[in-house]
Amino acid sequence: MKQSHLFGRTLREAPADAQTPGTQLMLRAAIARPLAAGLYTWLPLGFRVAQKVEQIIREEQDRIGAQEIRIPVITPAEYWKETGRWDTLEPVTFRTKDHGGHEYMIGYTHEELVMHHARNEILSYRQLPMMVYHFQEKGRDEQRARAGLLRTREFVMKDAYSLDKDWEGLDKQYWAQHGAYAKSFERMGLNAISVESDTGNMGGDVAHEFQVLTDVGEDRIIFCTNCDYRANMEKATRKLPPAAAAPGNVPAFRPISTPGITSIEALTASLKIDAKDLLKTLLMKDAAGNVVAIVMPGDRELNEPKLRKLLKTSDVKFAGEADFAAVGGVAGFVGPIGLNTRSRKTRVLVDSSVEAKPYVAGANKMDTHFDNVLLERDFTGEVVDVHDVREGDACPKCGGAVTIKRGVEVGNIFKFGPYYADKMNATYEAEDGTRKPLMFGSYGIGIGRAVQTIMETSHDAKGIIWPLAVAPFQVHVVALLGKDETVTAEADKLVADLEAAGVEVLYDDRDDSAGVKFADADLIGIPFRLTVSARTLKESSIELKGRTEEKGVMIPRGWIIAKVRDLIGDRRA
Amino acid sequence: MKQSHLFGRTLREAPADAQTPGTQLMLRAAIARPLAAGLYTWLPLGFRVAQKVEQIIREEQDRIGAQEIRIPVITPAEYWKETGRWDTLEPVTFRTKDHGGHEYMIGYTHEELVMHHARNEILSYRQLPMMVYHFQEKGRDEQRARAGLLRTREFVMKDAYSLDKDWEGLDKQYWAQHGAYAKSFERMGLNAISVESDTGNMGGDVAHEFQVLTDVGEDRIIFCTNCDYRANMEKATRKLPPAAAAPGNVPAFRPISTPGITSIEALTASLKIDAKDLLKTLLMKDAAGNVVAIVMPGDRELNEPKLRKLLKTSDVKFAGEADFAAVGGVAGFVGPIGLNTRSRKTRVLVDSSVEAKPYVAGANKMDTHFDNVLLERDFTGEVVDVHDVREGDACPKCGGAVTIKRGVEVGNIFKFGPYYADKMNATYEAEDGTRKPLMFGSYGIGIGRAVQTIMETSHDAKGIIWPLAVAPFQVHVVALLGKDETVTAEADKLVADLEAAGVEVLYDDRDDSAGVKFADADLIGIPFRLTVSARTLKESSIELKGRTEEKGVMIPRGWIIAKVRDLIGDRRA
Repeated sequence: MKQSHLFGRTLREAPADAQTPGTQLMLRAAIARPLAAGLYTWLPLGFRVAQKVEQIIREEQDRIGAQEIRIPVITPAEYWKETGRWDTLEPVTFRTKDHGGHEYMIGYTHEELVMHHARNEILSYRQLPMMVYHFQEKGRDEQRARAGLLRTREFVMKDAYSLDKDWEGLDKQYWAQHGAYAKSFERMGLNAISVESDTGNMGGDVAHEFQVLTDVGEDRIIFCTNCDYRANMEKATRKLPPAAAAPGNVPAFRPISTPGITSIEALTASLKIDAKDLLKTLLMKDAAGNVVAIVMPGDRELNEPKLRKLLKTSDVKFAGEADFAAVGGVAGFVGPIGLNTRSRKTRVLVDSSVEAKPYVAGANKMDTHFDNVLLERDFTGEVVDVHDVREGDACPKCGGAVTIKRGVEVGNIFKFGPYYADKMNATYEAEDGTRKPLMFGSYGIGIGRAVQTIMETSHDAKGIIWPLAVAPFQVHVVALLGKDETVTAEADKLVADLEAAGVEVLYDDRDDSAGVKFADADLIGIPFRLTVSARTLKESSIELKGRTEEKGVMIPRGWIIAKVRDLIGDRRA
Repeated sequence: MKQSHLFGRTLREAPADAQTPGTQLMLRAAIARPLAAGLYTWLPLGFRVAQKVEQIIREEQDRIGAQEIRIPVITPAEYWKETGRWDTLEPVTFRTKDHGGHEYMIGYTHEELVMHHARNEILSYRQLPMMVYHFQEKGRDEQRARAGLLRTREFVMKDAYSLDKDWEGLDKQYWAQHGAYAKSFERMGLNAISVESDTGNMGGDVAHEFQVLTDVGEDRIIFCTNCDYRANMEKATRKLPPAAAAPGNVPAFRPISTPGITSIEALTASLKIDAKDLLKTLLMKDAAGNVVAIVMPGDRELNEPKLRKLLKTSDVKFAGEADFAAVGGVAGFVGPIGLNTRSRKTRVLVDSSVEAKPYVAGANKMDTHFDNVLLERDFTGEVVDVHDVREGDACPKCGGAVTIKRGVEVGNIFKFGPYYADKMNATYEAEDGTRKPLMFGSYGIGIGRAVQTIMETSHDAKGIIWPLAVAPFQVHVVALLGKDETVTAEADKLVADLEAAGVEVLYDDRDDSAGVKFADADLIGIPFRLTVSARTLKESSIELKGRTEEKGVMIPRGWIIAKVRDLIGDRRA
């Protein structure tokens, strides 16, 4: 491929809004271009990377016996309505209608569609197990499209689906996918670790994510510093301190005047107490508008995914003024005592981090708090775990101290069991002649996010450093034309010889300076650079430089093809 | 691949609404399954065919220097608005909005998007020519989705786009694509011929279609029986008879009473004249609501695509009652004389097939016609060609008789020139320092339609006959289990040996009768069938049968791998 005619030009500077180092390089190296917020076109260099990533995944899916299919992007509403996701996914999906008024979703994932086909195609236990997958565009109306290809509104996902007779079969295929994922990420140069995760709007209960640790990641991953426990913050728990007996000598709670003091910070400063000795009470609303009161220590943070899961809702937000009035909460002074929860049927959730000790808490009266507020004695509620684990908390597995790192989720796997089959009446005839539900699992990898994560984790100040297995080309031939006309002829010959040997070559034939060409080569990040110039010709050699090496070495022209084949691991005779 | 666990089961009967032989086979052989009208999922067998078709096209695109990219399915309205196609394509496209209210089209094609990227990436003539392509889902809200994958509402298209400095460069790339298309169709087993075609809603002027002749086709193709002229009916013309001088001795037209006689048939029967001696006058309306009157002989048919092109409109339909009243036309008795065209600015189009001879025509008065109506003397209008060519008409090139055949359009290529660049302000810096428009062409092949056309044109009463190059598998191993337990072991070993030799094998390991298994093998249509049974084992042989052969032959087990490799054209050592 001649660089002079390559579709997509390199940029000297990244646009000002490029948020991460990898995004800047992605745009500068002409990997992809935006069409609108969160919508990107793969340019030829990026497409070649994406295709190699796809092929690695395909090979690992085929290896575990998954069968490739292809389901449309435009998916009829009727199947989504069977599981209720037509409604719950509305905020994050694109919808369309045909001219006859029928409704469709641009596929968010494809569980419902696979299950629909499965219930028609699978009649008997003799056909099980099965596993299918496809590579297909997904549409997601993300409010926070960000960081180039890390979070987009349309992307190709490899989504696989397993179908089994029973939990044992599902478990086997689930772990086969886990292994295929580990191998796929390793082959594409990503150091991904699997962590327990929340199932979010997917349904089901058991799930793992593959996380690549990097500061640009949005996810927070909890690691034990002592054992192998790791989990996404959305799901992580901690070992609570042993429950203490409630102290018997605590005086009754009484009001204290706290005029205009509505924040934790102001309260700790004014009362000279620690945040951990305060209770905060959050009034939240689920997607259906039900209000819940959550009581937790002032030094702990609410974990929204845990709360959503607990409430079985797709969304939670802070309650509004009308809600405060209705339950008798006074903004800034809300507390667990005296909330009008009975008539309104407002649930009171007491986070498990609240201990049996006296706290300061809001009095539900303007400018007033109570002190000496005691759980059980003064208020009660459902005890639940909806708080964030934090640095130094005790590991739920071994009690050791946990630490937190940032990660990008590059893949996820879900063990649904009969969840979808029950909703969609998808059964097969079992050995004993009865109808049983198809056991289901699903397994996803986003191609664009994987490519972006490679750029985020494999680059230097000069540009991208592509792992050989996914590099857009294996070799970058740079011809320094200068005044010597024989350089072009020699470079043309070198490129032809390399291509005849099956090597993928980007050929910089442009009439530019050595500085511009070397800078572009470093930016684009192809693993090996071969330079042809008047100087190398004089020595009957070619200069070979690895992308991460400081200096090149001269290789005699006669040896170069064999040398390159060796470097790219071509073992053919 | 074990057939017992294949996703997708064969059907004994096709659904009653399967319209064509190929559609029936597509459904029965589990190639694809509908999700809704015009929306199909590729099952594993079909996906493998589609992937091979795609790879053939990819190789031929790469061979002519086209660069693969990938543009999203969800395309922002703003680019379509630049060319006006946001409005004109509305009736045939799917639209969506994000939660911020921005509008998008599910890509109908991708000209506007490529041109947008091109105007940003291409600065100078030094970068030209370029050619890019992608394989991407297209959405088209077809009213008449039909015949399985022949006309669907979502399908993957390979669309390529050429960018050039001038007409000469465009011409070169246009014909390079023409060659790549011819080669691609040949490789996938389709006998496609190229014909001149209309550009429809694509814009531009020069276009060719690749047509595969088959009775299930919707297109009508005109062929000269004497020379190489061929063209789609939408575009075809004919050589008109030499213009005769208007006869001088025709009496003035006069009314004749035709009570209740409103059809051509009734008129010819009642007046005992030929349809060719009548004039019919059609009142039609364009997309903007403008009415035109079209005058043509009673024995000729209106060609709507020609009329749309002439009127530069996306749609024409018959005028309504109000339009008739406004121009003074009386339904059933409309004629060219006395139409109130001046005040209403209604255009009168006289089709070029109207000759200089006396006709009978409607009198724009209830129950009345005129006879002796003469063009020029009694009425005039713009002379245009808006009639269908018919069997036996004179070829426009050589005057020979033309004939008509039905075809499926499997590919089309368009030479736009500066059409899109002018609308989208897409220019490059030319050698002389001026800005010039990017010359543009586009080139499309629908994958699903190609696969369906193969099935329509390559089958027999028993099933599909896949050409080797696109067959889902190369070999179908059928194990007749019977009572001999060694059959399974031998068949397993045969499949393992074949797969180790790089042969693609579907392995019928099901516990079914020979009749069921052979019928399925014929239905699925894999080129070579290998049968293992107690009988073949006794002879230490395998039965080999080509899909189109009546009987199999016994091949010694020791020779079978070499024999199969020879049959599938594997030339590796």
